[in-house]
Amino acid sequence: MEFTQTQKEYFMKEAIFEANRAKTMGEVPIGCVVVDKQGKIIGRGHNLREHSQDATMHAEMLAIQEANEMLKSWRLVDASLFVTLEPCPMCAGAIINSRIKNVYFGAHDPKAGVTGTLMNLVTDSRFNHQANVEAGILEQHCAQLLTSFFREIRKKRKKNRKKEIKD
Amino acid sequence: MEFTQTQKEYFMKEAIFEANRAKTMGEVPIGCVVVDKQGKIIGRGHNLREHSQDATMHAEMLAIQEANEMLKSWRLVDASLFVTLEPCPMCAGAIINSRIKNVYFGAHDPKAGVTGTLMNLVTDSRFNHQANVEAGILEQHCAQLLTSFFREIRKKRKKNRKKEIKD
Repeated sequence: MEFTQTQKEYFMKEAIFEANRAKTMGEVPIGCVVVDKQGKIIGRGHNLREHSQDATMHAEMLAIQEANEMLKSWRLVDASLFVTLEPCPMCAGAIINSRIKNVYFGAHDPKAGVTGTLMNLVTDSRFNHQANVEAGILEQHCAQLLTSFFREIRKKRKKNRKKEIKD
Repeated sequence: MEFTQTQKEYFMKEAIFEANRAKTMGEVPIGCVVVDKQGKIIGRGHNLREHSQDATMHAEMLAIQEANEMLKSWRLVDASLFVTLEPCPMCAGAIINSRIKNVYFGAHDPKAGVTGTLMNLVTDSRFNHQANVEAGILEQHCAQLLTSFFREIRKKRKKNRKKEIKD
């Protein structure tokens, strides 16, 4: 791994900034940045599934696509990806396909995380590329974003249900 | 599985048609269609990685995105996906994320296939959705497309090398 702890936290904060952009749109707050080896952010993305009604619009996919466009290359050799939540199979697959070198994630995902939790696709030597993985960068902050988002949703639903009963 | 063998082969031929569109552009010939339960094609895609220089532009991703757009929904419940080559982790993940019901593929992929060959992500009960998989629809035709494409590439390279030595 090439970045200092301070640098890793700096980039994760940029991913959190992206997650907050998703949150303000009512989307599940997940954010991502792709960084080149000089430490320049070359791709940013936040979850846009509901607004786009496109199942592939995860934060990582959008950040990888932007980085591909920036470099005019599908190969993101030497790049690092910072994401607030552990990647799902689709995003782990896109990391393999784009040859990203390092993956740093915040919160673990016990439901769909496949860079360490349910399995580890990006270190599986049967694929033609492997990435390094470091988990738990600003984990509490990243997890908190999600838990408070879902708590708010449950609260609103409860309120609406009570209102319906009264009406 | 809901389609007859004749119907499955009809849709795989449509996927092969897409693969041939990739081939004429010099792309690795892989094609895909997404079909609704009435048997209407709602999404088509062919590999565009080199032309787009975007690592995510696989046939399945483009077909899923088009189907999402067509239905104005990220949920492709009851849809079937036909693809000439076994899906990679990214595309298998997109199949899970879009809730596709049935996956039919042509040729097995010993290098990156994860709907039966290296593993089976789409039947893994730990994820929040599972799809049915049927392998080997027009397998020989689908495999032949790829082997002849790579044979042509090797032939061209050999010719160019010989030319370089002569010059």
